[in-house]
Amino acid sequence: MENIKVPYCVPKNKRAEYIKNWKIATRGTGKLMMFACDQKVEHLNDDFVGPGIPPEIADPKHYFEIGKRAQIGVLAAQTGLIGRYADICPNVPFIIKANSKTNIIKKTDRDPFSNRWLPMEDIINFKKTSGLNIVGVGYTVYIGSQYESESFGQAARIIYKAHQEGLLAVIWMYARGHAVNNEEDIHLLAGGAGVAVCLGADFVKLAYPYSKPTIETAKKFQEVVNAAGRTSVICIGGEKMAEKKFLQQLHNQIHISGTRGAAIGRNIYQRPLEEAIRMANAVSAVTLYNYSAEDAYKIFLGKKKLDAKKSKSKSLKSFFSF
Amino acid sequence: MENIKVPYCVPKNKRAEYIKNWKIATRGTGKLMMFACDQKVEHLNDDFVGPGIPPEIADPKHYFEIGKRAQIGVLAAQTGLIGRYADICPNVPFIIKANSKTNIIKKTDRDPFSNRWLPMEDIINFKKTSGLNIVGVGYTVYIGSQYESESFGQAARIIYKAHQEGLLAVIWMYARGHAVNNEEDIHLLAGGAGVAVCLGADFVKLAYPYSKPTIETAKKFQEVVNAAGRTSVICIGGEKMAEKKFLQQLHNQIHISGTRGAAIGRNIYQRPLEEAIRMANAVSAVTLYNYSAEDAYKIFLGKKKLDAKKSKSKSLKSFFSF
Amino acid sequence: MENIKVPYCVPKNKRAEYIKNWKIATRGTGKLMMFACDQKVEHLNDDFVGPGIPPEIADPKHYFEIGKRAQIGVLAAQTGLIGRYADICPNVPFIIKANSKTNIIKKTDRDPFSNRWLPMEDIINFKKTSGLNIVGVGYTVYIGSQYESESFGQAARIIYKAHQEGLLAVIWMYARGHAVNNEEDIHLLAGGAGVAVCLGADFVKLAYPYSKPTIETAKKFQEVVNAAGRTSVICIGGEKMAEKKFLQQLHNQIHISGTRGAAIGRNIYQRPLEEAIRMANAVSAVTLYNYSAEDAYKIFLGKKKLDAKKSKSKSLKSFFSF
Amino acid sequence: MENIKVPYCVPKNKRAEYIKNWKIATRGTGKLMMFACDQKVEHLNDDFVGPGIPPEIADPKHYFEIGKRAQIGVLAAQTGLIGRYADICPNVPFIIKANSKTNIIKKTDRDPFSNRWLPMEDIINFKKTSGLNIVGVGYTVYIGSQYESESFGQAARIIYKAHQEGLLAVIWMYARGHAVNNEEDIHLLAGGAGVAVCLGADFVKLAYPYSKPTIETAKKFQEVVNAAGRTSVICIGGEKMAEKKFLQQLHNQIHISGTRGAAIGRNIYQRPLEEAIRMANAVSAVTLYNYSAEDAYKIFLGKKKLDAKKSKSKSLKSFFSF
Amino acid sequence: MENIKVPYCVPKNKRAEYIKNWKIATRGTGKLMMFACDQKVEHLNDDFVGPGIPPEIADPKHYFEIGKRAQIGVLAAQTGLIGRYADICPNVPFIIKANSKTNIIKKTDRDPFSNRWLPMEDIINFKKTSGLNIVGVGYTVYIGSQYESESFGQAARIIYKAHQEGLLAVIWMYARGHAVNNEEDIHLLAGGAGVAVCLGADFVKLAYPYSKPTIETAKKFQEVVNAAGRTSVICIGGEKMAEKKFLQQLHNQIHISGTRGAAIGRNIYQRPLEEAIRMANAVSAVTLYNYSAEDAYKIFLGKKKLDAKKSKSKSLKSFFSF
Repeated sequence: MENIKVPYCVPKNKRAEYIKNWKIATRGTGKLMMFACDQKVEHLNDDFVGPGIPPEIADPKHYFEIGKRAQIGVLAAQTGLIGRYADICPNVPFIIKANSKTNIIKKTDRDPFSNRWLPMEDIINFKKTSGLNIVGVGYTVYIGSQYESESFGQAARIIYKAHQEGLLAVIWMYARGHAVNNEEDIHLLAGGAGVAVCLGADFVKLAYPYSKPTIETAKKFQEVVNAAGRTSVICIGGEKMAEKKFLQQLHNQIHISGTRGAAIGRNIYQRPLEEAIRMANAVSAVTLYNYSAEDAYKIFLGKKKLDAKKSKSKSLKSFFSF
Repeated sequence: MENIKVPYCVPKNKRAEYIKNWKIATRGTGKLMMFACDQKVEHLNDDFVGPGIPPEIADPKHYFEIGKRAQIGVLAAQTGLIGRYADICPNVPFIIKANSKTNIIKKTDRDPFSNRWLPMEDIINFKKTSGLNIVGVGYTVYIGSQYESESFGQAARIIYKAHQEGLLAVIWMYARGHAVNNEEDIHLLAGGAGVAVCLGADFVKLAYPYSKPTIETAKKFQEVVNAAGRTSVICIGGEKMAEKKFLQQLHNQIHISGTRGAAIGRNIYQRPLEEAIRMANAVSAVTLYNYSAEDAYKIFLGKKKLDAKKSKSKSLKSFFSF
Repeated sequence: MENIKVPYCVPKNKRAEYIKNWKIATRGTGKLMMFACDQKVEHLNDDFVGPGIPPEIADPKHYFEIGKRAQIGVLAAQTGLIGRYADICPNVPFIIKANSKTNIIKKTDRDPFSNRWLPMEDIINFKKTSGLNIVGVGYTVYIGSQYESESFGQAARIIYKAHQEGLLAVIWMYARGHAVNNEEDIHLLAGGAGVAVCLGADFVKLAYPYSKPTIETAKKFQEVVNAAGRTSVICIGGEKMAEKKFLQQLHNQIHISGTRGAAIGRNIYQRPLEEAIRMANAVSAVTLYNYSAEDAYKIFLGKKKLDAKKSKSKSLKSFFSF
Repeated sequence: MENIKVPYCVPKNKRAEYIKNWKIATRGTGKLMMFACDQKVEHLNDDFVGPGIPPEIADPKHYFEIGKRAQIGVLAAQTGLIGRYADICPNVPFIIKANSKTNIIKKTDRDPFSNRWLPMEDIINFKKTSGLNIVGVGYTVYIGSQYESESFGQAARIIYKAHQEGLLAVIWMYARGHAVNNEEDIHLLAGGAGVAVCLGADFVKLAYPYSKPTIETAKKFQEVVNAAGRTSVICIGGEKMAEKKFLQQLHNQIHISGTRGAAIGRNIYQRPLEEAIRMANAVSAVTLYNYSAEDAYKIFLGKKKLDAKKSKSKSLKSFFSF
Repeated sequence: MENIKVPYCVPKNKRAEYIKNWKIATRGTGKLMMFACDQKVEHLNDDFVGPGIPPEIADPKHYFEIGKRAQIGVLAAQTGLIGRYADICPNVPFIIKANSKTNIIKKTDRDPFSNRWLPMEDIINFKKTSGLNIVGVGYTVYIGSQYESESFGQAARIIYKAHQEGLLAVIWMYARGHAVNNEEDIHLLAGGAGVAVCLGADFVKLAYPYSKPTIETAKKFQEVVNAAGRTSVICIGGEKMAEKKFLQQLHNQIHISGTRGAAIGRNIYQRPLEEAIRMANAVSAVTLYNYSAEDAYKIFLGKKKLDAKKSKSKSLKSFFSF
């Protein structure tokens, strides 16, 4: 795996800012543990009430209480939500999710398009006037949708403008629409990864074939990481699953597939606060600090503490050329 | 229920303005009694003439005569209408409704889209050049419509720009379109509430299942209030209904569901002026000043006066952290 | 009928300009006689050649020769046409018609949309650089069309920007499209009138049910005038009809329905110049100066002169509060 | 036929520039001989190779070699083409054709839209930075197309901005689309002419019913010229036809129909250079200098020289009021 | 073949910059060897893994390693990709590919549109802030698509703005969509070439009928080169083919058809690094330096070195008029 470089889209006088944001976002590890908190739009209230979901998570502040107390990497959410709750965890690094859509219209009914909510000038202005610890922006692209072309125009500009300001850019990249048969096809996921590096993204968030949770899958997934090149791949966590299996999958992604982090939502937040905090720490243990799946599971169970300093992670310096 | 905070989207030098507007709009109570006066576009002339509708309400000034003499919270209407009639009640706090559509095309025929009428720069300019007491803006989003993506782009920018100026932002949030089966489904309404808090709205105006006017409904509706978090939920009044039932429903919303106000149109204005004023006061009594439904009904009947000072409302300070 | 006020959309330093334009446009009467000269686009050449149409009217200058010699109120046409012919009648007050469409695509084939031709900045610039007596702007909205939303965005901005400059704004408001069954339905026309006042228009030009030319119709049409409130209703003239009947209908509109003027095209210009001038004067007699239909008919016949000073019109001051 | 005036859309400080451009473009005659060189897009390579087409015309420079050596009025082409070849004939007056489309999609398949290629700010900038003799702009409108509304917005702005700079504006006006039955219908052509004068065009280029090449047709075509008023009508040349017939038709248009020039492409350029030059001169002879069709034919045959000075044309001054 | 001129769209103070970029891009030969590296979007990962494709090319840096060590002309890719990898070959001349689309939606399903990713202001800013050796921009137009009109608007502006800055403009021009039967039809390709010169492109990249690899085809292809005039034609390389045949085809294009370069992707990069470098050099040998196909094949085999100085190329000066 090659070292990461400051892209040329970052102007010279913003290189220090970009490296600082990268360090903050990755907690000095070069890998990204992203706590995905944009699902109140994407899934409406489906993830927040129902059988087996504890009542306290219905309140949006649950996200931020976790962010405050767990050792997460970054918290990704829409400007409006962050604007209303950041006082709970003002020091957490934030990724501004710049677009979102609901799930009411089914993908079999109409190809998806997730429109930009705010132009970059507003987001940059928000960083300045809020004083919050905003380290990057996120944007969802649906390749294969009939609205792909519109998305590319928005994504390219958001990434470029983010880099011009020294911010990181994370692309949620999904193949979706009437022309897409299998959204989890690894070769297609690799295609999306290649698109992300052409867009210049720092990180690309992709689906992972959780339906086939084998070592073989993790190896085949290397095609995706290779295609992404210097754009770091992080996988979605998807639906909540058994903890042990979940942490093992995560470990396989990092250590077999070669991903550089993960973007986890439901597997963290669909739990009571204390349990959610322990799971967030377990995720960080695997993704950031090279803990084994077993040790991470102990962290989840409360039988072990996460110690960032003791981690066996190679330092950021070792693969990031400043 | 958690305290409300000044969102980070409000820059430091506009925080005082934002708090002032919040105080004015909520009459110091933290709750919003919004007199909804945008229906001449939404319902054309259907609400203004016909059997049982007194002739005097056909004149648009009826809205403003009520606004002048009743103890309403805010009057919400389009810029043009306010511009033409505000002289009648120049001190009333106004919410500028920034979009509207007619009801000629049926929702079974075509998914709805309500386009922005004026960009925020014009609305902010209108506040400045008119000197009117404009405290916020309103905008309707139809989630589930095929035009949802366009609406999100407009809504997000309107809310952000409003906050940048210290103005409140109110979102009318309706699930509507060919993909929506039941617009009154509480779980779906909760989804819309969650979207509103992600957009950063101060208040979200939602439908209420008036077809099932039970205590059980009011309790189930707590899902909606929970999903909205620090965005305050206010319900529509809907069609004119029997006064006693109406005020009881309102009381249930506030005291059982936990809403923070109401947006009432037809139940107020489809009456002769004096009666409309008494009903507006009755609505304010329940929504702002913690009157019982019975006492509010007496106000409507003219057997009791509304006394804002005597209200048992907890002060704005107690749940709003300045 | 209530007095008209300077709307709050007119900034303080433009109030004098607005009142001046209102005085000029209404010839000091508060009512608008608009000579509609935008039909070379709307009807192509259908109105200008054919059986019973005198040859001289085929030349566009016919419009302006009438404007020069008749006592019209305002002449409404597109910027380009005015730019080419205004030298004929440089002192006539002009309304710039800001949009137009042809009639080639039938309304049963496709819902109508009339796109803005020039943005307001160009129109305001045109007023300044031409030195012409431009007193206002006009724009057509088709409510019920699938393009209604786009029209509302253009109309609202045109009206607001016009008022910001002290110009009058006139909306041509038609219900049209596949969802509209009866374009002359009075209740629907009243709905359009209500939309116009919400947009903040000074005048709204509407259809009139000429197919039922009874006193009863004129009375029922009061619903429309009431719905428009402080926005003044003016009716279209429609196809050329018998002169006596035409002037009587006009008189009914003003004195029974309560409209504040009229927008007449074909009934004036589809005549040889001298006859057209006499008809324009007859229209002004009824709409501006309170002549009886009989006296106006005499003016048309050349048996009576129009004397603006002798008119029994109540002065502008009496219903316009400066 | 009435005199032409400087339109009010030309500001006072650009009137001299406008009159200068008019003089240059019309070679002091008030009439326009436009050499139409935009067909490499409109007809792709169909007009440039094939049976009976001499090989040398396949090279785009053929256009400009003709422009260099023949006595044409103006050469109309896209910015890019002019930018690449103007060195061949740097003194020729140019009309920038601001939009173009290919003929691949058939009009029975989809209504046509010809999108603006460059905004006026670029065209004005091109005139300034290139130093070329650019005297005006051209734009194609398809009335009756479902995209008519978009075209009107672009056309109106192009014309207005051209006039603001003292440039001439020429509209290619075609009725086309599924709603149009007969594109050569004279009454419909007259409608398009009327649209052009409302847009404020200086010249409107229209189809001519060449399928009925009679005197009667030429007379009926007066309806078109009348409808255009002060906008000067010029007809297309259409497909290459027999020279004598062609020049006679042209003469009929000018002297019977009353057109003020012609826009000729294939009838000129689909010939070897020397022959093309003679034909261009023959066209100028008829359209600009009042030669008879017979004399023009002699010019084409090389039996007569074109002498601009000897022409019997009434001077520009006589019908153009400066 | 005529000499190339600096187009008038290049302002005087940018002529030196334009000529410098032309010299750099064509390595002083006047011909363009473009290494096409935009296919990670256009073909997703299809070209980068699979039977017969060596594993090392899956990494995007493969492109740039070739660029670093082979004697290519220019490397064309998206801003984001160049921004991330240019450190490998910082001195290579780059063409910024300004648009791209994936191949997920089939052309039989929906007409293609490739949307601009970044506006020219960002690309120009990128050149300045990155300090990279950016010599031009590229953009794909699909003529015959229902989105052709949108493409023309973007293409014309990109080309014009590029020239205003002294940058070269390369158009990828493909006839594609439901209305196109044969994308390799030479007459249609010639049409596209004509469009490109009207747009003002410096180079136009076109398909070549590789399915009929005869001398006859190469001769017929002269129609395309003729139609393009001063816009230089370069052909795509298409799918990887047998090396000898490939180099012969290339030679035929240059020396029989008269193209001025080539745009090669898969035939170069779908090889291990050393082999790819030799093939790139072989391509340069034929396209830039007038090597015979046989000698170029020897270069590919490693049996001969490419010597740019020894080339029999006529100098750039000889056909480019500075």
